[in-house]
Amino acid sequence: MTNWTKIDETVKKWIQEAGTNIRASFTRLLSIQAKSNPNDLVTNVDQETERFFIEQIRTEFPGHRILGEEGQGDDVQSLEGIIWIIDPIDGTMNFVHQQRNFAISIGIYEDGVGQLGYIYDIVHDELYHAQKGQGAWMNDVPLEKLEKVPVETAIIGISSTWLVNNRHFDQTKLVQLAKDVRGTRSYGSAALELAYVASGRLSAYITMRNAPWDFAGGKMIVEEAGGIVSTVSGEGLNMLSVNPVFAAAPGLHEDILKKYLT
Amino acid sequence: MTNWTKIDETVKKWIQEAGTNIRASFTRLLSIQAKSNPNDLVTNVDQETERFFIEQIRTEFPGHRILGEEGQGDDVQSLEGIIWIIDPIDGTMNFVHQQRNFAISIGIYEDGVGQLGYIYDIVHDELYHAQKGQGAWMNDVPLEKLEKVPVETAIIGISSTWLVNNRHFDQTKLVQLAKDVRGTRSYGSAALELAYVASGRLSAYITMRNAPWDFAGGKMIVEEAGGIVSTVSGEGLNMLSVNPVFAAAPGLHEDILKKYLT
Repeated sequence: MTNWTKIDETVKKWIQEAGTNIRASFTRLLSIQAKSNPNDLVTNVDQETERFFIEQIRTEFPGHRILGEEGQGDDVQSLEGIIWIIDPIDGTMNFVHQQRNFAISIGIYEDGVGQLGYIYDIVHDELYHAQKGQGAWMNDVPLEKLEKVPVETAIIGISSTWLVNNRHFDQTKLVQLAKDVRGTRSYGSAALELAYVASGRLSAYITMRNAPWDFAGGKMIVEEAGGIVSTVSGEGLNMLSVNPVFAAAPGLHEDILKKYLT
Repeated sequence: MTNWTKIDETVKKWIQEAGTNIRASFTRLLSIQAKSNPNDLVTNVDQETERFFIEQIRTEFPGHRILGEEGQGDDVQSLEGIIWIIDPIDGTMNFVHQQRNFAISIGIYEDGVGQLGYIYDIVHDELYHAQKGQGAWMNDVPLEKLEKVPVETAIIGISSTWLVNNRHFDQTKLVQLAKDVRGTRSYGSAALELAYVASGRLSAYITMRNAPWDFAGGKMIVEEAGGIVSTVSGEGLNMLSVNPVFAAAPGLHEDILKKYLT
């Protein structure tokens, strides 16, 4: 039987270590930005961080498989067994331009079922995490169960990409939603926006294109905080492909789904 | 002759003190949020902070006038003399929902000309400030002069409000702009978004409705960092009324103005 609590302790230790290394890269990044294109360095930090996790997992949990954004993990084609789904830096553009609004995202799934989820906002030293059936936390503070939010007082995370004419979704209904809610925000990091839904900073998050590493950690955390995560048609997410993702507080999820998305 | 350096030192001291008080209010806010509607408390913190600045200014600089969002200052109808334009908490909705992404904003103008500007991101302890002709800083770090950014690599701050059909501006051209840039963001605080333009975290910021207290501090800081601030028609801002505000890095300001706004 898998000892999830032991895995949880181990992951947290690794995340802290990765965070320390990424923070240290800021100095390198800032000095390079002044001189040249920072893209190479960013790629290095992304890849180094993913490699760090992969090496640790291979040593400590040799039977587990790894699906990572940077592609250095396994060629995962099925959901059997234990799979780590990792985005070493979600919000890379923010990492380059802002040195904030990015996060490490990790979801650990067993036979397709989320067991552990982590989103680490390195700059704010805020680790959002969840364990199946145990609830969700921000650092040591338990996240309160999300309550029903009416559309007219909701603040939702949505990129302007989905409000203008695009080839993924008819924007007309989303435009109406954007008009009906109290406010919209866009931070450029799916992982952080999911963490904000879990902690009530946003009431909902909608995107038409998220890869598994963008949402694997966040899905666990939102669900354990009492929120609902689905596709924009209300179906379950496919953990092996790109999905449209819709996360929201309960009640609000149903209202938006009925009135604006279907 | 006005001693702007002395005023600058005094304002910074007051801003730190106001920041400490606002941080202390988080505990009150969080405990109240769990029980009831937090709007009253927020109004209190807004008003208390404005009152704090007004009392200090009246005592220290009795000849100066004050234009404040909360309306406790003077009835300012002209730009003669020295005027403090104050938003005690810009981004109130974020203050309530997120306890971040809000700021104190202060601009000090003499006969309509900006002399000192401040935006204090309390949670990050980042004070953006500028003095006319002296440049701009984030805390003690001088902000580098902004350089030309091409539209296709720009990240711009724009609320979805202006990308959907609205009564202030034909959204068609803004939609095209949102498609052409590398990315859009929306943080829900004009002051912070202007500070991000000044520090290069955003390349531009566009809004159709800002009051003087929303942009008075930011305008000074962006301009001293080498950026350009105007209305969306490229005209100067009226410091006594609501304006559409367009701030951007040089070059980008001209490109967007020509291609998307006029």
